[in-house]
Amino acid sequence: MNGEVIETDLLIIGAGPTGLFAVFEAGLLKLKCHLIDALAQPGGQCSELYPKKPIYDIPGFPEVLAGDLVDNLMKQIEPFQPGFTLGERAETIEKQEDDCFIVTTSKGTQHKAKVVAIAGGLGSFEPRKPAIDNLEKYEDRGLVYMVKNPEDYRDKKVVIAGGGDSALDWTVFLADVASEVTLVHRREEFRGALDSVEKVQELVEADKVRLITPAEVMEIKGDEKVDSVIVRHNDKARRMEEIECDAFIPLFGLSPKLGPIADWGLEIEKNAIKVDNTLDYQTNIPGIYAIGDVNTYPGKLKLILCGFHEATLMCQSAYQRIFPDKRYVMKYTTVGGVSGFDGSQKIAEKAVVKKISQKEAVDE
Amino acid sequence: MNGEVIETDLLIIGAGPTGLFAVFEAGLLKLKCHLIDALAQPGGQCSELYPKKPIYDIPGFPEVLAGDLVDNLMKQIEPFQPGFTLGERAETIEKQEDDCFIVTTSKGTQHKAKVVAIAGGLGSFEPRKPAIDNLEKYEDRGLVYMVKNPEDYRDKKVVIAGGGDSALDWTVFLADVASEVTLVHRREEFRGALDSVEKVQELVEADKVRLITPAEVMEIKGDEKVDSVIVRHNDKARRMEEIECDAFIPLFGLSPKLGPIADWGLEIEKNAIKVDNTLDYQTNIPGIYAIGDVNTYPGKLKLILCGFHEATLMCQSAYQRIFPDKRYVMKYTTVGGVSGFDGSQKIAEKAVVKKISQKEAVDE
Ligand SMILES: Cc1cc2nc3c(=O)[nH]c(=O)nc-3n(C[C@H](O)[C@H](O)[C@H](O)COP(=O)(O)OP(=O)(O)OC[C@H]3O[C@@H](n4cnc5c(N)ncnc54)[C@H](O)[C@@H]3O)c2cc1C
Ligand SMILES: Cc1cc2nc3c(=O)[nH]c(=O)nc-3n(C[C@H](O)[C@H](O)[C@H](O)COP(=O)(O)OP(=O)(O)OC[C@H]3O[C@@H](n4cnc5c(N)ncnc54)[C@H](O)[C@@H]3O)c2cc1C
Repeated sequence: MNGEVIETDLLIIGAGPTGLFAVFEAGLLKLKCHLIDALAQPGGQCSELYPKKPIYDIPGFPEVLAGDLVDNLMKQIEPFQPGFTLGERAETIEKQEDDCFIVTTSKGTQHKAKVVAIAGGLGSFEPRKPAIDNLEKYEDRGLVYMVKNPEDYRDKKVVIAGGGDSALDWTVFLADVASEVTLVHRREEFRGALDSVEKVQELVEADKVRLITPAEVMEIKGDEKVDSVIVRHNDKARRMEEIECDAFIPLFGLSPKLGPIADWGLEIEKNAIKVDNTLDYQTNIPGIYAIGDVNTYPGKLKLILCGFHEATLMCQSAYQRIFPDKRYVMKYTTVGGVSGFDGSQKIAEKAVVKKISQKEAVDE
Repeated sequence: MNGEVIETDLLIIGAGPTGLFAVFEAGLLKLKCHLIDALAQPGGQCSELYPKKPIYDIPGFPEVLAGDLVDNLMKQIEPFQPGFTLGERAETIEKQEDDCFIVTTSKGTQHKAKVVAIAGGLGSFEPRKPAIDNLEKYEDRGLVYMVKNPEDYRDKKVVIAGGGDSALDWTVFLADVASEVTLVHRREEFRGALDSVEKVQELVEADKVRLITPAEVMEIKGDEKVDSVIVRHNDKARRMEEIECDAFIPLFGLSPKLGPIADWGLEIEKNAIKVDNTLDYQTNIPGIYAIGDVNTYPGKLKLILCGFHEATLMCQSAYQRIFPDKRYVMKYTTVGGVSGFDGSQKIAEKAVVKKISQKEAVDE
């Protein structure tokens, strides 16, 4: 156990749209939430896989960009001040004598809660790693597979590898932050949103980004941490070049893997967790629920709007588990308003009761 | 049988948020929909009871006015060109030999479909009627309890009775359309949104609306249709006044009643229709589904977001019923786009694959 244990009412594994909305529904019930996600940012698939693409089947939105949906959800849950453990994967779960669960992450962070909701989607997003020796030696010592805090690269020399949206977008972003940005890609063609591609082209022309294509990073050098990378130009000469840098960021995409959750004793079917859809989306372990893409039941659809519904019903059941003696009476948000843990208060304007005066001097 | 039978794939009873969103999900499956509602406008409770109030628990909307949510849903389903039978109550349902259902309304309009989805909410909205003799004689002969088409009152003399938002709002609206608008209310105080109250006050002062308070309409006169109403001033003198008019519109509120649906042979519990929530929200009669506020099952929450989920799962099952031999493979809207029956096409922009040129003349 290193550091303090984070305690909360409802611990949510996965900060995709389902996990985020669960915070809102829990908040209406006055339950505090904490979220764990392997990604550096909330939003799950929406943020990681298609932030700039439109979704057409979110009820009430004829069209909404996946990234905007996540922003909206973050704004909606703001009053309920959720805690976040980001960039860490939930590895183990243990039930305590006091009936609480302890969930520990890949970095040893511990979380304690009476109820755990797994909103793990298709699984925890794991980076595709380059085929380079000794990668482990440099991980978190200059080598990272996702950017958590761009400020870490302020005035640093950065080498980014990759040819998709992440590589393009971080190149653009860090060009303003880092002292030197080099982008290495094994083809000359990039695949991404048109404006990202064009922006990188501009930065290259303005000498703000150095582009090396077609090329590959073959080796990392440094005693304690990344000091440089060896790049092989994939032209005829196959020339090798050493590039000094403080950080090497291969962005070859993240793909979801159910991962350690598969070993938690939960009933698994088709790579998903079986739940009781007749009532509350509870798993075979009482106190552990599974909502959103991560669960399965007869007729299950892996859609965002279904995750919202599941999260809502789950929260009612979680409330009963946490407060077995209390009886919750649901109030419409329109009627009861939303009382944030931050003291904020949203409430509909009441109708006025007001006299309307007749016109004076009726001419009769 | 008067007139043609309206045929459709999926007949939806109730055009509240649940029924409306069902049109979208059905449309993705290429099923055509027709909606019946007792109200003159779509939106159910949202439109009739609280159009100007904010809802806080629609996922992705930190705040949305109920009326705006309905507008958004109407926009979202536009590509699927649903048909509407408005201002008519579904009265009877009959199963045909060809396995189709025939649903007939209060005005005798007939609808035929293989699948019926009841999205009837708390029931069909029925007007509270004033205590006046011979009401039936004048119904739809100058006496109406809801405004279907404001243009019907162009250059006509209209008497409105009531003191809530509907009475206020229609007074404001018709002041511009009708030749004469008289508003009668039994108190001097009105209860409604502040700006509606203020707007009526302005119209009264500008002589565009005549206000009679405290007063009551006691009698309707006319041979074939409404020719005038007798108003009693509720002051000491209790003076009676006859007001000539083409239309008398008492707006004392509409309240929902489950109504005739209760006699369709469906299992009813707590004034709601029991459904199979383990699979597809089907009722005890195969081919008839119940979604949204109108249904009940263990753990049911009467929330808009739950209706959206139920509508979505119901459509999958309806599809199987309508096309038993076809196998539907779900595609994300982001990936497959939305193809409207009107020929419209929404589709996410594809990522570009594009070369980014290196800076010429590397100085080495
Ligand atoms: C290209 C594309 C287009 C799509 N289009 C649509 C569409 O049009 N409409 C629609 O409804 N859906 C669409 N989807 C699906 C939609 O994105 C998912 O249904 C939705 O993201 C599921 O949300 P979720 O919160 O359940 O899971 P996810 O969004 O998958 O989030 C789960 C999160 O849990 C984290 N996690 C998992 N395990 C762990 C662990 N052990 N430790 C820490 N973190 C963990 C993951 O890192 C991830 O961030 C689309 C998906 C893709 C890929
Ligand atoms: C003041 C108020 C505030 C609310 N606030 C919230 C909130 O904050 N969040 C939330 O999620 N929910 C809220 N609700 C509840 C929400 O409005 C309902 O859950 C929602 O409207 C249900 O949608 P529906 O489509 O299932 O039914 P409804 O909106 O009730 O629509 C059903 C429609 O079916 C029609 N109908 C029924 N029977 C027949 C028939 N036989 N023939 C023809 N037509 C028929 C009715 O006329 C009606 O228009 C609130 C409700 C009220 C009254």
